[in-house]
Amino acid sequence: MIKVQTLKGFRDFLPETARKRQYVINSLLKVFTKYGFEPLETPTLEYEEVLTGKYGDEGDKLLYRFEDNGRRRVALRYDQTVPLARVIAQYKNELTMPFKRYQISNVWRAENTQKGRFREFTQCDIDTVGTNSVLSDAEIIMIVFEAYKTLGFNNFSIRINDRRIFGDLSIKAITILDKLEKIGTDAVSEELVVNGICKNSTDAQKLLQSITQKKPSSYLETIFSLLKDAGIPQERIVFSPALARGMDYYTGLIFEIQSDDYPFGSLCGGGRYDNLIGMFSGVQTPAVGCAFGFDRTMEAMLALDLFPKELSGETKVLVTIFSFALASKSTEIVNKLRENNINAEIYLGEIKEKNPLEKQLKYANAKNIPYVVIIGEEEIKTDTVALKNMQSRKQKTVSVGELINLLTQ
Amino acid sequence: MIKVQTLKGFRDFLPETARKRQYVINSLLKVFTKYGFEPLETPTLEYEEVLTGKYGDEGDKLLYRFEDNGRRRVALRYDQTVPLARVIAQYKNELTMPFKRYQISNVWRAENTQKGRFREFTQCDIDTVGTNSVLSDAEIIMIVFEAYKTLGFNNFSIRINDRRIFGDLSIKAITILDKLEKIGTDAVSEELVVNGICKNSTDAQKLLQSITQKKPSSYLETIFSLLKDAGIPQERIVFSPALARGMDYYTGLIFEIQSDDYPFGSLCGGGRYDNLIGMFSGVQTPAVGCAFGFDRTMEAMLALDLFPKELSGETKVLVTIFSFALASKSTEIVNKLRENNINAEIYLGEIKEKNPLEKQLKYANAKNIPYVVIIGEEEIKTDTVALKNMQSRKQKTVSVGELINLLTQ
Repeated sequence: MIKVQTLKGFRDFLPETARKRQYVINSLLKVFTKYGFEPLETPTLEYEEVLTGKYGDEGDKLLYRFEDNGRRRVALRYDQTVPLARVIAQYKNELTMPFKRYQISNVWRAENTQKGRFREFTQCDIDTVGTNSVLSDAEIIMIVFEAYKTLGFNNFSIRINDRRIFGDLSIKAITILDKLEKIGTDAVSEELVVNGICKNSTDAQKLLQSITQKKPSSYLETIFSLLKDAGIPQERIVFSPALARGMDYYTGLIFEIQSDDYPFGSLCGGGRYDNLIGMFSGVQTPAVGCAFGFDRTMEAMLALDLFPKELSGETKVLVTIFSFALASKSTEIVNKLRENNINAEIYLGEIKEKNPLEKQLKYANAKNIPYVVIIGEEEIKTDTVALKNMQSRKQKTVSVGELINLLTQ
Repeated sequence: MIKVQTLKGFRDFLPETARKRQYVINSLLKVFTKYGFEPLETPTLEYEEVLTGKYGDEGDKLLYRFEDNGRRRVALRYDQTVPLARVIAQYKNELTMPFKRYQISNVWRAENTQKGRFREFTQCDIDTVGTNSVLSDAEIIMIVFEAYKTLGFNNFSIRINDRRIFGDLSIKAITILDKLEKIGTDAVSEELVVNGICKNSTDAQKLLQSITQKKPSSYLETIFSLLKDAGIPQERIVFSPALARGMDYYTGLIFEIQSDDYPFGSLCGGGRYDNLIGMFSGVQTPAVGCAFGFDRTMEAMLALDLFPKELSGETKVLVTIFSFALASKSTEIVNKLRENNINAEIYLGEIKEKNPLEKQLKYANAKNIPYVVIIGEEEIKTDTVALKNMQSRKQKTVSVGELINLLTQ
């Protein structure tokens, strides 16, 4: 027999979870659309050289890459930003600028699964390409704010920084400074010394101070003011001068969302990257965007109980079958319900002679179907059906017309 | 500079096409849900041994497979049926039977792209697992019928067969007979002889006749009768005794949809496969289902002009910016529109001093945005805005309250 298992870091989503994922995606889609963002899809596989060198050495190591049947070196999508950059370069004459797109798809990273990371996970990205207007920076943050409000989050803050605050510090130095909120001042200064960026801890403390005492740039001040105009409470916006978010390619705004109620890493993050697209197109093309951490957001919503209760099932009624001889009557009724756009199932399992309804009612219960229709000899004679409310356990006899009325309410 | 190209057989979907794809998926989802089908997601990568040997020798050759960083042999999803079989075996105690699920995701096959085939394409599957009730066979066909009606197809037929009609003929023989409608009687008999299945053409003609003269089994007759009860016109249902659909794993019902208006292969096909899941679970588990040919269906809809016109864009109004000094007023207006759930954009590109609106109106035109709001000094003084209808080119001055009323109509 064949091994029945999934690869480490890869997951099956059974209906209950899959429905929750759909709910989050649909909620985000609605917000993106409200702001005029349009869908984009890119291939799962790209030429390896499109992806390598864009995510730093660490990223290169995590790429899933192989030789395909035609001996081409290919790699699985690692994020949605580099493919976007390729798309912009490839179709620049077909796209209206500024180009605002969202993309929701899976990405693959050969991560260490022991850290609770997945190797296949969903990313939701929005990006605005072809403008360096500060309005576009502010808009991305407004969308993120509205998205998390829509999903039901309350106590969250948006940490904001300007990449230029780091001046010409090395990437290594910035990466260490970025850990400040996680590991604290002492650990950061130690790392700065150990990695040879500062001579000693006094120097390290000085460097740290020179960063943490920085004031927001006038560019950030304009963003803050636009966010205030948009009605975002000021206490949500936190200037975080050590924030760098690891990524090499940010050039201006950097931000991330942190939930006070679920303080296990950022839910979402992004920023401005004005040089990445030019690597593909040869023409400098400014861009700003963000990636929603879909899994982290799902986890937080589960922990904080933010999913609506009625998400459990979408079938409104199960039409049961009393005996195979009466199946055609049940088929007729379920067809009528569906014609009236009522989500309706007919029981498809085996009909036992003894207690034919027992398994059918269990099925309705297991699937959270709120109503059950029963059609026996008596009902057929009187051209009625019995409608059972699965919660109150009450049952009443109604005509088919009444049934449709009751279930469309 | 980096190569900007996609791999052969892989595609980018720009917004206009991506929106059409979403439309088809959403239309199908609604039908699936109406019949009580639930979502399932499975990983993109599976252990290679889960997939090999399930699709015949041809299928094995087309698998994308490689060794991952942990030296595991892995393969990309080739269809959604084998992963479903694995899921049923793996979670049998968690799933309510009969289990009705849909899955909409991409699959990968290293096809010869010269035949106009893609190497990455979307599949939409529905399957009912855990019952051999003829009602479940009929239901799959009812859903397919309703789905294609919903998408706007008119002249299509559902070709139906019973795998058991072929008795103990070899897979090779069945594969040749399956070509009857495509290549005709003479070519089929020749192939039967060339491949040593029949001694000579007289024998081949006899074999062919013995198949084409078969009558529907009583199992098929019951399905036909249920489809009639469901209001499907009888002329849509065509008994096709030579239909086999290549797949090795069918055990009963086999069917496919053919459009008379777009006669370039079947749009959708499926059948009953009672043995596949047992290969994983060790327990025979009946199942019936079908896969929508998403790309073929999209192509046909494009050719037959079945997409609604209003699909072009979802933004209702563009709020323009007259000069950077007036940007905050425009921001305020666009925020108010969005608060009222109106899909609204603010122009994010550069604001020129000369003719500031020219590029902005072009942007609205290019993105098919039906309304534009203009706010100049005069409007700010009188606390109004100018609303321009991009089709009639008419413009009128209204208060913000009136603007919201007009746009929510």
